[in-house]
Amino acid sequence: MGRGPAKSSAKLSAKPADKTSLHLRLDFGGERSLGPGKIRLLELIDETGSISAAGRALKMSYRQAWLLVDELNHMFKEPVVSAQTGGGGGGGTVVTETGKAVVRLYRDMERRTFKASSPDVRALSRLIAPVARKVL
Amino acid sequence: MGRGPAKSSAKLSAKPADKTSLHLRLDFGGERSLGPGKIRLLELIDETGSISAAGRALKMSYRQAWLLVDELNHMFKEPVVSAQTGGGGGGGTVVTETGKAVVRLYRDMERRTFKASSPDVRALSRLIAPVARKVL
Repeated sequence: MGRGPAKSSAKLSAKPADKTSLHLRLDFGGERSLGPGKIRLLELIDETGSISAAGRALKMSYRQAWLLVDELNHMFKEPVVSAQTGGGGGGGTVVTETGKAVVRLYRDMERRTFKASSPDVRALSRLIAPVARKVL
Repeated sequence: MGRGPAKSSAKLSAKPADKTSLHLRLDFGGERSLGPGKIRLLELIDETGSISAAGRALKMSYRQAWLLVDELNHMFKEPVVSAQTGGGGGGGTVVTETGKAVVRLYRDMERRTFKASSPDVRALSRLIAPVARKVL
């Protein structure tokens, strides 16, 4: 996934202007939210097949990563991550079809959002003071 | 606004799906960020002419509100809020032209973003479990 250069627009859109970035969080009610952290965790679980490896990559403890996965699994109608048993390798962790759909929809939303907002984001960036005041 | 069924999309987009809402935060680097809280504070200062009244409406202390205003004033090239001296009323607090531009651009960005993201947001909402599990 993601080898062709045509796909690099996704990278660009993550930084709508110079040092400016836009972050999206969805609230579904009942304290259920979805933002870039959980999505990145799902992507890394999908890549590594392991909650602990994904957590490590995000500098979180296994417990932290596991709690986020548990939260995600209860948030959606169907689990987004499940243990894969059988086979030879002692089983791994997989992102389910629902989980993959969640990641895809979130990234689609981000792409559309970054594109739609970029004129306003650029205009806002131009109003920002050029250098951050040094604090401490 | 929002009487005809065609125009109701603007209203709808503030709540992209049933109980679902989308929140945007801009990061400009140097720990300078802009989200719905600061924007709402500016709008309320513009409405009330008072940092303390705006803070009260958001259930924050005067100190909290003042610190946010100070942060905003240093974040942009020009202050977004300034004290108005003179006149009869002992002076009030006004949102500057830059401050008004910031609010307008942010709300424009939100509107465009909500519109662009609504198909994905709806699709994600449909994957969410219908009732939050009762915790506690």
